[in-house]
Amino acid sequence: MTVTTPAGFRAAGIPAGLKSTGAKDLALVVNDGPAFDSASVFTANRCKANPILWSQEVVKDGVVRAVVLNSGGANCYTGPDGFQTTHAVAEKVGSVLGVAPGDVVVCSTGLIGLANDRDHLLAGVDTAYAALSGDGGADAATAIMTTDSVSKQVVVEGAGWSIGGMAKGAGMLAPQLATMLVILTTDAVVPAADLDQALRAATRVSFDRLDSDGCMSTNDTVTVMASGASGITPTLPDFTDALTQACTDLAMQLLRDAEGADHEIAITVLNAASEDDAVEAGRSVARSNLFKAAVFGNDPNWGRVLASIGTTQAAFDPADLDVAMNGVWVCRSSTPDADPALVDLKPREVSVTIDLKSGDARATVWTNDLTHAYVHENSAYSS
Amino acid sequence: MTVTTPAGFRAAGIPAGLKSTGAKDLALVVNDGPAFDSASVFTANRCKANPILWSQEVVKDGVVRAVVLNSGGANCYTGPDGFQTTHAVAEKVGSVLGVAPGDVVVCSTGLIGLANDRDHLLAGVDTAYAALSGDGGADAATAIMTTDSVSKQVVVEGAGWSIGGMAKGAGMLAPQLATMLVILTTDAVVPAADLDQALRAATRVSFDRLDSDGCMSTNDTVTVMASGASGITPTLPDFTDALTQACTDLAMQLLRDAEGADHEIAITVLNAASEDDAVEAGRSVARSNLFKAAVFGNDPNWGRVLASIGTTQAAFDPADLDVAMNGVWVCRSSTPDADPALVDLKPREVSVTIDLKSGDARATVWTNDLTHAYVHENSAYSS
Repeated sequence: MTVTTPAGFRAAGIPAGLKSTGAKDLALVVNDGPAFDSASVFTANRCKANPILWSQEVVKDGVVRAVVLNSGGANCYTGPDGFQTTHAVAEKVGSVLGVAPGDVVVCSTGLIGLANDRDHLLAGVDTAYAALSGDGGADAATAIMTTDSVSKQVVVEGAGWSIGGMAKGAGMLAPQLATMLVILTTDAVVPAADLDQALRAATRVSFDRLDSDGCMSTNDTVTVMASGASGITPTLPDFTDALTQACTDLAMQLLRDAEGADHEIAITVLNAASEDDAVEAGRSVARSNLFKAAVFGNDPNWGRVLASIGTTQAAFDPADLDVAMNGVWVCRSSTPDADPALVDLKPREVSVTIDLKSGDARATVWTNDLTHAYVHENSAYSS
Repeated sequence: MTVTTPAGFRAAGIPAGLKSTGAKDLALVVNDGPAFDSASVFTANRCKANPILWSQEVVKDGVVRAVVLNSGGANCYTGPDGFQTTHAVAEKVGSVLGVAPGDVVVCSTGLIGLANDRDHLLAGVDTAYAALSGDGGADAATAIMTTDSVSKQVVVEGAGWSIGGMAKGAGMLAPQLATMLVILTTDAVVPAADLDQALRAATRVSFDRLDSDGCMSTNDTVTVMASGASGITPTLPDFTDALTQACTDLAMQLLRDAEGADHEIAITVLNAASEDDAVEAGRSVARSNLFKAAVFGNDPNWGRVLASIGTTQAAFDPADLDVAMNGVWVCRSSTPDADPALVDLKPREVSVTIDLKSGDARATVWTNDLTHAYVHENSAYSS
């Protein structure tokens, strides 16, 4: 069920003292080989945290031996000293594992502007190293949680190989990666260039289509490591399909655990002139606070859907739009159609379907409703 | 204090039966001349309401004799029958006033997708016509309210001439005009072309910089009418200054009455490479739900400011940004500086200052915090 399911990986999750609660806050995931191929994607935010600045360099040669992750502090905008903390942690992991520090990805999550206690981190690496095991994946998944209410893990089985994954993220979920850390492992034999191609294809239709609250994080990282321990080389399409399945599963787990949300909303745009148009239209609806508050109130307010689409550059005729909510076509040709009272928004899962009648492309963007609990969680606690 | 303060204007606001509460819901503002110059700006939303489709044509020749406005229904996405309602109302106003229907601007506000009762509207025009008076401005300002808690009016005095104005708007406040209707009057002599230039200059730095909740309306209209009744022709810069002052005053009234808001937030971006950069950076912060929820919680979370700026294309060095909240520089050179505990966010008015250190342009964008009351108001009631 986790990153240690594929052969060739060990992991640990331990309390290093960064969280005042004493909860687990440091995770280590190690690839024992024989191969060390990897690929990564990072946040598109131009304001990047120190671990991103470090890890972007680490992954360039396609070799990653280990990932060390901490919750309890994002190490973002903590200055040169913060970068030195990231560097020191990578050096420490390299030292205990006997690998080059330049092959160690570092991830951090928590409050921006908060320096992480370097001594706690370095001592924590020793503790995590001692705890490494072939069934340590669940502990690692727990150690990276911040406001997450549950840990997120996935396994997808191939023919003699598998993919494992873990993720964290509950707020700042937005396109081009959410506030999330995702580590994927596989024992398939997949060269780094193929891993990169597969990972970009998988994230494009999963994490990149998740727009819970429109806020883009400074720390997002998705790293996949391939140990080759199964000795099996899947075809690239087969591997890409499995990786997409794993990423989509984790994305839906993030969506379901989004801060304060009462509804998961799938916005599907049909018959767009291009996939980009479909994504742009879907994302505009996902970012409408008025629409999201209406869903929270179980109000099938399709006017707010049209008002959102009208702000985009997508190709469509404003006088010929159809909108369905939970399968009820409440608007056809931009006029009222079925009675909105037929739409039952009480179940958590809500579908919005928009027909742009301008082509044959389509896309789905996922978001959450805007709730009292979202406001509470993000006003009462720093993150 | 209102649209009837300048000489040459009469107005009325009466209950026409559109609102189930029996409150005033129809307003009429008439220019008695001798001049009938006008200028207007409309929502940039591509999904436009029927009154917008009508009024865009009306204003093209620079002549407007009257504006008729209703609350209780936006007449947006109500189909061809809805457009005929708008047309019938303009015909009716033209008939009672003895002017061309093509010189009558129509504005509607309320729920999208809701047809307005045409008979109520037409009978209401008769009632409003009978009630027209030189001190009817306050009634007119009341009749256009929807979720507004107070009516919004303004007067700016020139040398022997004046500008009067009224506005409505409390939600869907976003750039390129908010969910708002604004009618401005003046007894100065100002040809239509100059009015247009002055209005575009005034809205660019007032209504267009208001981004309360990121949602752009389908019905926004700002119309200015010049009666020339004072016989005085101000210089264009003088008139533009006065009009900008009137628009800014009304914009601040809209901001202070935004649905559910606890704070008015002025985001000022300094030393940007261009004014566009300054506006883009400011607007990104104004659209961050996480930042807005933090202000509601009196949490000076400058990390969320930087995370927002990082999503823009503005010119800046991510490692050299300064951020102040209420005058306290909590972040300098992208590292923590003054203790955030020094920032007192209890007062309603909050200032955020961002120094991009990339040029000498600046701009201020205004927004509100994200509160429980915003969620409540927009989930419990359709609008």
